[in-house]
Amino acid sequence: MPDTHAHIVKQFEEELRLIKEKVLRLGGLVEEGIANSIKALVERDTQLAERTIENDHVINGLEVEIDELCLKVLALRQPAASDLRLITTAIKIITDLERIGDMAVNVCERVLELNEESPLKPYIDIPRMALAAQRMLKESLDAFVNGDTDLATKVLVEDDFVDELNRQIFRELLTFMMEDPNTISRAMKILFISKYLERIADHATNIAEIVVFMVKGKVIRHTKPQQESY
Amino acid sequence: MPDTHAHIVKQFEEELRLIKEKVLRLGGLVEEGIANSIKALVERDTQLAERTIENDHVINGLEVEIDELCLKVLALRQPAASDLRLITTAIKIITDLERIGDMAVNVCERVLELNEESPLKPYIDIPRMALAAQRMLKESLDAFVNGDTDLATKVLVEDDFVDELNRQIFRELLTFMMEDPNTISRAMKILFISKYLERIADHATNIAEIVVFMVKGKVIRHTKPQQESY
Repeated sequence: MPDTHAHIVKQFEEELRLIKEKVLRLGGLVEEGIANSIKALVERDTQLAERTIENDHVINGLEVEIDELCLKVLALRQPAASDLRLITTAIKIITDLERIGDMAVNVCERVLELNEESPLKPYIDIPRMALAAQRMLKESLDAFVNGDTDLATKVLVEDDFVDELNRQIFRELLTFMMEDPNTISRAMKILFISKYLERIADHATNIAEIVVFMVKGKVIRHTKPQQESY
Repeated sequence: MPDTHAHIVKQFEEELRLIKEKVLRLGGLVEEGIANSIKALVERDTQLAERTIENDHVINGLEVEIDELCLKVLALRQPAASDLRLITTAIKIITDLERIGDMAVNVCERVLELNEESPLKPYIDIPRMALAAQRMLKESLDAFVNGDTDLATKVLVEDDFVDELNRQIFRELLTFMMEDPNTISRAMKILFISKYLERIADHATNIAEIVVFMVKGKVIRHTKPQQESY
């Protein structure tokens, strides 16, 4: 096909579509990583934890691939205005996604350690927190591909719920540790898992904030500082 | 002056210089934030902690300013190859810098809480860890502006030292908690501060990895996964 203007426009649209599609695929892999890490925790499944750690390289590989694709499109097409912002937003979002993948790996590492000791207590709030974080992640990416600021704003509100769960888990584990110092080592590991999930929710919040900035050109990040409230 | 080609090239060079300069200025502010948060911890200086929290909006404002500048230069100049990569690298780096700023705020929040209780122990390893993290930050940004991959690689090695200090602090505080449950609440807060510093070092490592990628086009991130070793 000749390199007519219409053809170039069509190619460019196809490239933007491909970027969005790959970001969603990366998001899907990351979401699966979170789900598996929590399944491995609840079911004390050492093999699943190990497999999830191994699979992280697929996430990392796809992040690099999208990064390269974005650079290529920037260089070849020299987009302006909203297309430019879409691509630079994608470049930022995939960094958050890759780090969420790292958090799932961290959960799995703690699971491997916890599986060498006897169980401390059944997990109730941690799976709830993980589900909330996964939903936030999914919504923030849907907001990205659809330029949906309402959905992005919803994510910011949900982050408060995750923070509250994290505080609740912290208080409960503190009580365990105070009452029986033998639980300290295990309680700390569970506490770290709770922190990893809180950070996953923070990354989803970051994505949602970047999306609002992409669409409205308005900075909503930093208006409410991300408080670490252990 | 007429908009000759030479003039445009000169303007573009000036813009690239400005981006680098602003990234360094942002880095300086962030470094100061870390230093002040640890000074506030060691000297139990509540006012300094509060002032550092307040000053975070300057960091956030400068990040947004650089982000806008990068987008503007991308749209106006449509740079190729290494210039393009420099700008997209800057876009990524400032996200890490802004989040390091948030970590310093988190340190200060824990300081405010710790100052309401009696001191647990003198701080020795935490200031050492903070100094190492600050040095890593400075080196990673120098590596960015000079395209210096040797310096960037040095940062990766230094991260191991910070991780080791973090593990050491963890073990020591665990002993405190085991021996006297009354120390648990304070020890946890100090432990979180140690984690924040470890995350600052991780962000500096991320910056260094991105710089190597910028210069060599070679991915060195993810070859050694960033292990959370509490």
